[in-house]
Amino acid sequence: MPRYSDELDAVLRALADPTRRAIVERLVISPAVVSELAEPFNMALPSFLQHLGVLEKAGVITSEKHGRVRTVSLRPGALDVLHLWLGEQSTPAERQADRLGIHLTRTTPKET
Amino acid sequence: MPRYSDELDAVLRALADPTRRAIVERLVISPAVVSELAEPFNMALPSFLQHLGVLEKAGVITSEKHGRVRTVSLRPGALDVLHLWLGEQSTPAERQADRLGIHLTRTTPKET
Repeated sequence: MPRYSDELDAVLRALADPTRRAIVERLVISPAVVSELAEPFNMALPSFLQHLGVLEKAGVITSEKHGRVRTVSLRPGALDVLHLWLGEQSTPAERQADRLGIHLTRTTPKET
Repeated sequence: MPRYSDELDAVLRALADPTRRAIVERLVISPAVVSELAEPFNMALPSFLQHLGVLEKAGVITSEKHGRVRTVSLRPGALDVLHLWLGEQSTPAERQADRLGIHLTRTTPKET
């Protein structure tokens, strides 16, 4: 069993919910304050905060409070553990392509 | 919300367990009969069968019975929905690399 098994359990469980995935999808674009993040969801704030709590406990997001405003961000590398596990479950040809993909991500300038 | 949201919920929930991930890791190599598959797990057979049931219901594995022997296989493309969602959560540079990776998977002969 891989060393990162507990982390993977928590990340997978956190993502196994459409609201929490939608939060991640929004935070991929940029960090957001809680009120702005909650706005598109037709949900009571306490329920929404509970979803944020699950994501934060799983290490998928981080949050920071400035005065009365809490800003939520995707934790850098939050989904790496999942990428890693999925990569290990691929066929030899898929693995070869993935390695090249990782190489290109590291060597390609962000703005081209 | 993507159309495949329910499928993704089920796959993520099914994989959020170390035993079920270990079953997937074993089946990536080849199909296996249930007794052989259960052997490395220190677990009562009914509990093990329950894990197989969760994976099968989520569409991650399939099984076929010949006489008294049930053979379990990874469903082809079982993890595609997860690859797809993860790919959508990547930065522009990562996406560029992924597209090349997919291209290479499709054009690289399996045995080289």
